[in-house]
Amino acid sequence: MAKQISELKLGILGGGQLGRMLIQEAINYNLTTLVLDPDHEAPCKNLANYFECGSITDFDTVYKFGKKADVITIEIEKVNIEALEQLEKEGKMVFPQARVIRLIQDKGIQKQFFKENDIPTAPFQLANTKEDLLNSSFPFPYMLKQRKDGYDGKGVMRINTIADLDNAFDSPCLIEELVDFEKEIAVIVSRNSNGEVKTFPMVEMEFNAEANLVEFLISPSTYPEHVQERAETIAKNIAAALNITGLLAVEMFITKDGQILVNELAPRPHNSGHHTIEGNYVSQFDQHLRAVFNLPLGDTRAINNAVMLNVLGEKGHDGVAKYQGLEKIMAIDGVYVHLYGKKYTKPFRKMGHITIVDQNREAAIEKANLIKETLKVIS
Amino acid sequence: MAKQISELKLGILGGGQLGRMLIQEAINYNLTTLVLDPDHEAPCKNLANYFECGSITDFDTVYKFGKKADVITIEIEKVNIEALEQLEKEGKMVFPQARVIRLIQDKGIQKQFFKENDIPTAPFQLANTKEDLLNSSFPFPYMLKQRKDGYDGKGVMRINTIADLDNAFDSPCLIEELVDFEKEIAVIVSRNSNGEVKTFPMVEMEFNAEANLVEFLISPSTYPEHVQERAETIAKNIAAALNITGLLAVEMFITKDGQILVNELAPRPHNSGHHTIEGNYVSQFDQHLRAVFNLPLGDTRAINNAVMLNVLGEKGHDGVAKYQGLEKIMAIDGVYVHLYGKKYTKPFRKMGHITIVDQNREAAIEKANLIKETLKVIS
Repeated sequence: MAKQISELKLGILGGGQLGRMLIQEAINYNLTTLVLDPDHEAPCKNLANYFECGSITDFDTVYKFGKKADVITIEIEKVNIEALEQLEKEGKMVFPQARVIRLIQDKGIQKQFFKENDIPTAPFQLANTKEDLLNSSFPFPYMLKQRKDGYDGKGVMRINTIADLDNAFDSPCLIEELVDFEKEIAVIVSRNSNGEVKTFPMVEMEFNAEANLVEFLISPSTYPEHVQERAETIAKNIAAALNITGLLAVEMFITKDGQILVNELAPRPHNSGHHTIEGNYVSQFDQHLRAVFNLPLGDTRAINNAVMLNVLGEKGHDGVAKYQGLEKIMAIDGVYVHLYGKKYTKPFRKMGHITIVDQNREAAIEKANLIKETLKVIS
Repeated sequence: MAKQISELKLGILGGGQLGRMLIQEAINYNLTTLVLDPDHEAPCKNLANYFECGSITDFDTVYKFGKKADVITIEIEKVNIEALEQLEKEGKMVFPQARVIRLIQDKGIQKQFFKENDIPTAPFQLANTKEDLLNSSFPFPYMLKQRKDGYDGKGVMRINTIADLDNAFDSPCLIEELVDFEKEIAVIVSRNSNGEVKTFPMVEMEFNAEANLVEFLISPSTYPEHVQERAETIAKNIAAALNITGLLAVEMFITKDGQILVNELAPRPHNSGHHTIEGNYVSQFDQHLRAVFNLPLGDTRAINNAVMLNVLGEKGHDGVAKYQGLEKIMAIDGVYVHLYGKKYTKPFRKMGHITIVDQNREAAIEKANLIKETLKVIS
């Protein structure tokens, strides 16, 4: 018999909430987990079988850490790719593959990949410096995105007029046409090394404009079947073009004229899949483990309507976190609390999420609104 | 604001699979967990924030361990009660309460409690020695149970004739009339300190006669509503009579003439509630945490038909565990694997459980039968 999942060691680069929820699932398979994270109080610290406090962007640290594992995965894209490539050369299984992370790390290369593979996406242009931006004839208004290291709304700004360029990033950037969208949607697709592919049902997102973060996520979507199928097909096409092993979150826009445009990719468990823990037969975390260990993929169907709500640090609060209203929201049926084990809160920090499951979609949304008003992370 | 669950420390006596699944749930609340277990390779070892290898029956060890926690609970009844009583005197919250554990630890006192509180149960007699058994006029055949420390089919034997008494226990025992039962059932009831009480829907069990262990558990039951209500009312009455805080599993028989008789109690998460992780809105583990921290109890309704199957060590295998057929069963939709992190298997050792969830009850049972034939724990 080949080595089984219960005998293998999974190395995870990054020890945040995504790693934490991955470990919660890994426990069910007796999987040994190793985590590398620069924060000595990372959410995974007490859960991993082995926790190393160290840089995930340093070649030597990542390489030496990876040598200890049988399979290496990520919960954040900003990792040292060269070390992963070296580990792959030496026969380690790195999923998603280093070349996939390299491509996705850079929003410019990501966009070019879309173009080369006929993946629908908003028109764009690349710029290396602020000077390039000033010389560009790309029409205002547009979105300006740093090619690397942006996340959770950071590294993104809207440029309305040439005057806004005063504060623009002076680093390799991507200029993107503003999309007049009706809805932001996401599809998570998974693929194992045998080439088995499954998508989770398409979900709809509501954004908090101020925080530039997903506020509500609603699953499943109520868009017509053919729209959902189109979104799921796009996700599958991207997974196939990337030849990825693991999970891939595909964020898309539905424009007001009915087009679907791909916004961004994440080759790992993603905020847009948290609701799957309770809302779907298989969770995105279980599915990621199945994919990277080349096990049969699980049933992605929705069990129930699910609304996911990010729990963000309250404005004006910075310090040891307290969860005001927690007891009140736990009195509501079908409410699942997921706190991420972060000791300190700060404005808009992702401190946890709440999933609401209800047979009635409107009731689930109503509960989500009530919870949003009730639960506050203060210090 | 009073101290919140995320700021509290839960001490768990026992570090087996029940503690392990309790910790998986506790992670969602940022709860700090401390575990005491005599086995340095206990399933909880790598998951608890603090793990202590030590005796759970020794006064000093339990007392000192308990001093470190805010709330103390158990995952096994065989613990040092005197230490828990002392901790209660000093103001620690011990849930279930020490007096409840004391009562349930002793099957003789448990039966007397049933009698005093008009809880229906099979006729019985107590015996202190083998001599008492030989002198008893209790009619054969009967079940002979050791009053203390029996579990998983150990400490129980069937006495058909006086000749069987040669091998009988020579310790305080309980003689119990054989129940001609149609079905073994269970109801888990939970109660918080505010007195809020909720029962999980009644489940049906199928036993493996050879291992004397639950083999299949089916949720929810298909017995008529009035039978289920009666079972749930009995469970609530017991919880009220005990004035328990926490979870209480009530194992019962439905006799061929339609009576419900209580068999045994367990004041903690229980094998008969494992299916609730995926099969019900709230899991027994979440509910136990809610109860002991005096939080609102969750929605116990079944989401789907669920069948739970214990994964037992194969006969003739003793050594490092391998899970034959695991990949095959993971290819079946709605199948959830829970391995308990035990390195070594031995015949009939509980190594894990599998839950099968399906909208069709018969399909779920069929899948369970297939899994039983496919998955083998060997060495």
